[in-house]
Amino acid sequence: MIPFKQFFYPRTVAVIGASTNKEVFGSRYLNALIKYGYKGKLYPVNPHADKIFGLKAYPNVVDIPGSVDLAVISVPARFVAGVLLDCLKKGIKAAVVLTAGFSEIGEEGRVLEKKLSQLASQGIRVMGPNCFGVYCPGGAMTLLPGSAFPQESGPVALIAQSGLFSEMIVVQSRGQGIRFSKVISYGNACDINEADLLEYLAEDAETKVILAYIEGVKDGRRFLDIVRRVSMTKPVVIWKAGLTQLGTAAASSHTGSLAGNKAVWDAFFRQSGAIQVSSGEELIDAAIAFTKHPSGCGSRVGLVSGGGGGAVTGADLCENLGLAIPALARDIQDKLGLLLPNVGACVRNPIDIATPHPSVKLLTSVLETVASSEQIDVIVMRQIFLSVKATKLVIGFSTVSEEEQKQLMEIPLIIRERFGKALVMVLEEEMTDTDMIEFEAERRRLRDYYLENGIPVYPTLDRALRAVARLAGYRESGQRA
Amino acid sequence: MIPFKQFFYPRTVAVIGASTNKEVFGSRYLNALIKYGYKGKLYPVNPHADKIFGLKAYPNVVDIPGSVDLAVISVPARFVAGVLLDCLKKGIKAAVVLTAGFSEIGEEGRVLEKKLSQLASQGIRVMGPNCFGVYCPGGAMTLLPGSAFPQESGPVALIAQSGLFSEMIVVQSRGQGIRFSKVISYGNACDINEADLLEYLAEDAETKVILAYIEGVKDGRRFLDIVRRVSMTKPVVIWKAGLTQLGTAAASSHTGSLAGNKAVWDAFFRQSGAIQVSSGEELIDAAIAFTKHPSGCGSRVGLVSGGGGGAVTGADLCENLGLAIPALARDIQDKLGLLLPNVGACVRNPIDIATPHPSVKLLTSVLETVASSEQIDVIVMRQIFLSVKATKLVIGFSTVSEEEQKQLMEIPLIIRERFGKALVMVLEEEMTDTDMIEFEAERRRLRDYYLENGIPVYPTLDRALRAVARLAGYRESGQRA
Repeated sequence: MIPFKQFFYPRTVAVIGASTNKEVFGSRYLNALIKYGYKGKLYPVNPHADKIFGLKAYPNVVDIPGSVDLAVISVPARFVAGVLLDCLKKGIKAAVVLTAGFSEIGEEGRVLEKKLSQLASQGIRVMGPNCFGVYCPGGAMTLLPGSAFPQESGPVALIAQSGLFSEMIVVQSRGQGIRFSKVISYGNACDINEADLLEYLAEDAETKVILAYIEGVKDGRRFLDIVRRVSMTKPVVIWKAGLTQLGTAAASSHTGSLAGNKAVWDAFFRQSGAIQVSSGEELIDAAIAFTKHPSGCGSRVGLVSGGGGGAVTGADLCENLGLAIPALARDIQDKLGLLLPNVGACVRNPIDIATPHPSVKLLTSVLETVASSEQIDVIVMRQIFLSVKATKLVIGFSTVSEEEQKQLMEIPLIIRERFGKALVMVLEEEMTDTDMIEFEAERRRLRDYYLENGIPVYPTLDRALRAVARLAGYRESGQRA
Repeated sequence: MIPFKQFFYPRTVAVIGASTNKEVFGSRYLNALIKYGYKGKLYPVNPHADKIFGLKAYPNVVDIPGSVDLAVISVPARFVAGVLLDCLKKGIKAAVVLTAGFSEIGEEGRVLEKKLSQLASQGIRVMGPNCFGVYCPGGAMTLLPGSAFPQESGPVALIAQSGLFSEMIVVQSRGQGIRFSKVISYGNACDINEADLLEYLAEDAETKVILAYIEGVKDGRRFLDIVRRVSMTKPVVIWKAGLTQLGTAAASSHTGSLAGNKAVWDAFFRQSGAIQVSSGEELIDAAIAFTKHPSGCGSRVGLVSGGGGGAVTGADLCENLGLAIPALARDIQDKLGLLLPNVGACVRNPIDIATPHPSVKLLTSVLETVASSEQIDVIVMRQIFLSVKATKLVIGFSTVSEEEQKQLMEIPLIIRERFGKALVMVLEEEMTDTDMIEFEAERRRLRDYYLENGIPVYPTLDRALRAVARLAGYRESGQRA
């Protein structure tokens, strides 16, 4: 039995190895918990200090009065086993070992790590070593570098073997509306491993979508079984690193992981129903898509854009990603033909409305017509308008009033509501100049508007279609009705 | 003989189809030229107006007093041939046809387009139809939507069959320091085609790097010969769209192009020495790389980062992209071992310096050691520090002073100078929140600093390594000594 409650919602935390030197990891961790707003009791443990960050320090964990739910350990690697023994003596059931220098450094470290595994079997379960801890807004717990992480919980869980990525994914996805139930940086997994964590998250009511960055697994068979089971009810998106020879070597020096070979992992992804991605960006993009469309969507795309080149490259992308972009039925094409100018426009699908400035009536009619087609499962809409302010920044004036702009913005929401089809927006980062930063701010405001209203938004067509392909893959894997 | 001088540096331009209605393309084009600051004489041509944008309008191009270097035509498709005849009568040698509605709409349009080709053979050379014109800062000429394009010239040329992409690539790359010698939106290529343009750009002293977005080519054999020849002296980066069945269909309705099959194009890229990319982003990323390193670089990467997960995924990426990431020689590893903490750091390559906050001395020594290795051709450095201001935005304080920051920033410049090796930076877009826009502004300032000092910068490791792979591919294609 793993005492997950103690890891995620501890009432008391001992931070062993915090010190008066603010730079060491133990101190940084303690500081992060305080800054983030941890609400329980905090006990710094250090034999050479009386007070740390204004908190009374104890020479040893056994000296702490009362019970301790969680020990977070950041002492040199050779001392960790001794500290764990003290924790056992104190009756602590859960420990996070931040310290690095175990199996990832070679034989010497492997011996030390084995000791931790042995101690773990004696009644104290261990997360790590070589990790950043757990982030759980509900328990006011955060990662070593997570002092400024969001306070609110959300439906996404992340398990990551890399501490850096566990942090970066939270930070980079925050602006894209992603909030987390739990993030677990689990490092070398000497005791609690990826399968244990997935098993927990499968049952966790807060968690609707599961993300994972994995370098190696401890027990492949069990992991496959669990992922297959979890995928029936929640999408599991996995970034498996170390699938090349070079990556395998790097994984060994990073988390002491046996990365496994590519053929085995290809089979795993075919059999498990997990969604494979290959970068942090794709992990985040999938999270955006699945939080808005948790049961996925069909693979037949209606692509609507305001200029022609996007149609060609969009069609290329769809085919390469296994998405369909069916030619619309004759009657639908005729309907669109009446709406659109007969020059420059394209009504076949991709639909090119041939102007970056459609009227409210035109945009509504086009989207209605596409959405009403039984051949289309998901509408991907390439930015065909900017905010009035952004337009003025680019071309100095806007032919659209604020009122029209508001109406234009609402159209995709109304269409999605009325037809119940998935709708994905592309809002490009057009202005990358430093002195055009206000344009990017406007783009983000528009993005936030759609995200808040349940519409996934991506900065490029590539990323949008890739995310749609993930949704379609999950639906097609048959894992979910 | 194509009168390129008249297209890029016209002394007089007639805009046929400009009108008192500011919304029509002819008016927009005229307005763009005025706003951009065209310095020659402008003659609006319209039988129904006396003055347009304050300029005297002429009923017909033949009524214009004096000679006309360039005619820009934006009248309905069925009238274009007649206008071209008038232009011939007037002795005009160069025409841009903005109008759409030719071969891309089917048989009827093909007939109209054939007429233009025939007229072109009678002494007036034609760019387009279905295009946005040319952008040439040296001639104060700009695209239909290019009123706010940069005034300065640069070493990059772009030819694009999509008007939208010709615009977007200029706009999106501007903030990344890319400036253009010439941009040509050449549409359906009824007369002047991609091969003609490349032949011109090969000789153009202003142009050092050539980008192309192509849907179909008119004469494959000639195109291959020219690209092969041009690639000997200038990198030619090509985004060939329409390489799928769906994309081929879309290309036909966009520019009336025959996209050709994938096997043929694979052979083309193998034989021509051209660099293949598959998105606008990659086109821009390659432009950044080649403007800084016009003769490419070797394929052996030294990857330096401040956290471990990046090492694993970086190694995966390198292998997948055909780059090497050689394990450093024993003596170099030993040297690094003495510099870096023995826990968490990795000295094999990728090099993980295990801290996001290295001292000036540490960072200098590590980069010196890596750069001095004969096994390494190019250093890729993953953001291991932020600006002081950005750090404060993220964690509330900075342990680095402004003076130290300045020194840290300079180190990569000094190393590149001393060792003469390519060096590429990764500065991630970490904060995507709307209210953290100031962080992005800081990132852009840091990016600008490196770009101005000749160092390519990318927002993700994927994009940086992909760009390095393009540099290495060009070097290895043997096109260049």
